[in-house]
Order: sequence, then C-alpha cells, then structure tokens
Amino acid sequence: MKNSSETNRRDFLKKASLGVLAAISIPEIVACSQSATDNPPITLKQDAVILFQGDSITDAGRNKQNDGPNTTGHLGSGYAMLAAGRLLEKHASANPKFFNKGISGNKVFQLAERWDADCLEIKPDILSILIGVNDIWHKLDLGYDGTVEIYKNDYIALIERTKEAMPNVTLIICEPFAVAGVRAVDERWYPEFDEYRAVTKEIADMFNAHFIPFQSIFDEAQKRAPGSYWTYDGVHPSLAGAALMAEAYTSLFI
Amino acid sequence: MKNSSETNRRDFLKKASLGVLAAISIPEIVACSQSATDNPPITLKQDAVILFQGDSITDAGRNKQNDGPNTTGHLGSGYAMLAAGRLLEKHASANPKFFNKGISGNKVFQLAERWDADCLEIKPDILSILIGVNDIWHKLDLGYDGTVEIYKNDYIALIERTKEAMPNVTLIICEPFAVAGVRAVDERWYPEFDEYRAVTKEIADMFNAHFIPFQSIFDEAQKRAPGSYWTYDGVHPSLAGAALMAEAYTSLFI
Repeated sequence: MKNSSETNRRDFLKKASLGVLAAISIPEIVACSQSATDNPPITLKQDAVILFQGDSITDAGRNKQNDGPNTTGHLGSGYAMLAAGRLLEKHASANPKFFNKGISGNKVFQLAERWDADCLEIKPDILSILIGVNDIWHKLDLGYDGTVEIYKNDYIALIERTKEAMPNVTLIICEPFAVAGVRAVDERWYPEFDEYRAVTKEIADMFNAHFIPFQSIFDEAQKRAPGSYWTYDGVHPSLAGAALMAEAYTSLFI
Repeated sequence: MKNSSETNRRDFLKKASLGVLAAISIPEIVACSQSATDNPPITLKQDAVILFQGDSITDAGRNKQNDGPNTTGHLGSGYAMLAAGRLLEKHASANPKFFNKGISGNKVFQLAERWDADCLEIKPDILSILIGVNDIWHKLDLGYDGTVEIYKNDYIALIERTKEAMPNVTLIICEPFAVAGVRAVDERWYPEFDEYRAVTKEIADMFNAHFIPFQSIFDEAQKRAPGSYWTYDGVHPSLAGAALMAEAYTSLFI
C-alpha cells in the first residue's frame, strides 16, 4: 500500500509542477495526505457507531436535548450531518449509528474535560475529531493564554487516553482550517495558526490516524469560488463549505 | 438520445428478468424513468436560480423568516437542503442560488394559491415540484374531498400557468411516494394512491419535464434496509431517506 501512496504523492507533485492543480479532486487531496502508514479505506461493520467530536464547526446548531443518532436534530446542520446522511444512504445495510457531540467554543482541553461522557461511554467504532481553531482564536479575541505546545500535549494526552480505553477505535483526525481574508481570519492568525495545523498532522501520523487535510481542501476550493462562498466568517462553513467537508469526509470510506 | 434511453430501459428490464434488481443504481432508476423525450442532464448556467416547491417533505422545518438562499435555515433539513449542498459544492463556479418554498400540508391547489409570490416572482431557471401525498392523506384523515381528477386538472393548470409565465424554465416533476406498512401508510391508501402516482408521471411526460421516480427509489432502497430506516411514518423521510432523495435529485444534473 505504501508504494501506491507514494505514487499518489508523486502524481500530485507532478500535477502541481505542471500548474494543473485545479484538476485535483477532493478524494485525491485526501488520499495524498494520509500518513506514511497509508491507512486503507474505512469500512462500516454491522451496527457501527460513529462519533463526531469537535467545536462549533461540528456542533453546527445541534439540539443537545436530542440524543437520537442519525437525526438532523441530533446531528446539527453542518458537515457531520451531511457526511452522516451520505453514509447512511450508501451503507444502509450496515445500519450505522451516527452521534455528534461537538460543542461550540471548545478547545482541546475542553474535549478532555467531557471525554468520559461524550466519547468513551459512547464506545464509538469510528471517532473523528475536528478541533484547534478556538485554541488560537480565543487567544486573539478572548484572552485565552494557550500555546501550540499546550495544544500538542493536550491533544496527545487525549488520544493516548482514547487508545487506552478503546484500542481498536478507528481514528480520524481532522486538520483545523481557516480561510484567510474572510472576516474573522486576519493577519494575526499567521504564522502561528500554521503551527497548529502542522502539529495536528504530526499527531495524526504519530497515532496512524486517518487525516483529513481540510486546509488543502478549502485552499483548492477557492480556485472554484471565493472564500466567502465556502465560509461566512473564515472559520464557520456555509452550506457549500459543509458539503465540501462532507465530500472529503466520506471519501475516507469505502 | 432516444436510442440510449431505450437501451437503458432494455437493460433495466433484462436485469429485472434475471432477478438482479438489487444491482440497479439510483441514477439508473432515475434514467429509466425519464419521458420518451429523453431530457438531457440538467446543467447549471451561471447564477442559476433553483426553486424547490412542495409540501412538508420539501419544507422540512425550514425557517420561513429566512429568505437567504443557500442556507440551511432557509432550506430546512430535508432532501432540498441535501441536494442543494451537493450541487453548491460540485457546481461552485456557477454560483447557483437555491430557494425552498415548500409548505407543510400543501396540496396542489394550495401551491396554486401562492404561486405568484412563491414561484413566478422568484423567476427560477429550474423548478422542482414534489406534491401529492396530502391530496390523498387529507382525504383519509382530515375530511378533504378531492379526487384524482381534481389533482390532475389542478396540476396541469399549474404547469400550464408556469410555462406561460416562464417558457424556458427547466421543470422537474417528482413522483409522490409512500412506504406501505410504515405507521401512517395503511391499506386505505391503495389502490387510489397508485393513481395519483400514475397521473403525476403522465403530467411529467405531457410537459417533457424531468421526472424523479421516488416510489421506485424507495421501493428499491428497501432491499438494503427496512422501510422504517428510510421514513419515520411512511411519508416523511429520515435523514437516510432524505439523502436517498438527494442522491436521486442530483443524478439529474451533470
């Protein structure tokens, strides 16, 4: 499998050098960003439990009183619901159960605070995490005093705790992303935000997790429509942006 | 194009006779149900306006104070939002605008009552209509006294009025569907409901409209999961059912 991944990367670089990047598909971008372990596509076993975790991008206005999996009320109106919808349709015979426990405003340490109830007790077969934007945003706007090192150490501790409780969980780590120049995302974010992104990829590789390169996905999408088409404020996706994320998410599954 | 359609139909019948219906994909089911005029796939021209019209299945809890196209608030949480999301992603460079004006409980004559404001003034390039379930359901449960003839005549008048005001509109007529045996849908629906479905197809053919055979789509889907997986009450789709509908809807577009 490694050779095939390396071939993908070579093809990617070749296309890039020829200036035909616009022709690179979302599944190709995702495939090129997997770790050196080259995880095979994810399959849904019978009655699989899939958990989305994260901040407001995952939360997406979900009804927190609604604990019923697979419903739009429970799943919210973002990428989690869109990805769940497509996988529920495609893999109906597997009867999967999709849960969303994203909470607006969360940083990594806040995931850790609620991890027993909102992750381990749910016993997901597949767990995806999208976190990191608030770890920098709240420093700029809300006086939070975290650092990239704190983010990294907290994130590693969270994954170690997860793997210890659920050694067989299939892990999807999502790259935090921002669309520079759209409302909230100004020059104060850089270059520090790039460090948060790099650390997230490093952690995905460290744990052989699947990785979704959302920054590349949004960068590439801006060749087709401006940043404001994909996100309202540079951080929260529009319906188009959420659909873009769902397209990337579902491309991990076979 | 006609030959290709006929070949599709022959393939379909051949597969059916071989007992391998389970292998027929959603796009194939949709392709086989187009009228003899064999409409080509729909393309989205620059800044295209797409309008979803119908009853509660289209409405899907949309916020009627929100007039902003392309938002989940405006589009609701049903197939219209899911189809819009996928088309917004795929056809981003066309910058399409998706509107939803479905209203819960509507029958055909109620579409007609609000057609000026909720359709003609929006000037859609593409108009889809999903109506018909309440035209029978409200007879069974709410004392409505319509007939198939009234439904047919009202529907034809509505389309004639639409074509007169907007001769170039691309029309998508959706088959009303029901999942027999799931909660609300009992033996009282049949055989009359089949007549409503047949009339709807007849009208689609009469006006060379694109047609989405939702009944076949839901029938076929029950080979993969039970009816209650796809719809809560036999009429309103679950997230899985709405995603199934969106898959069929988007297959009309190229």
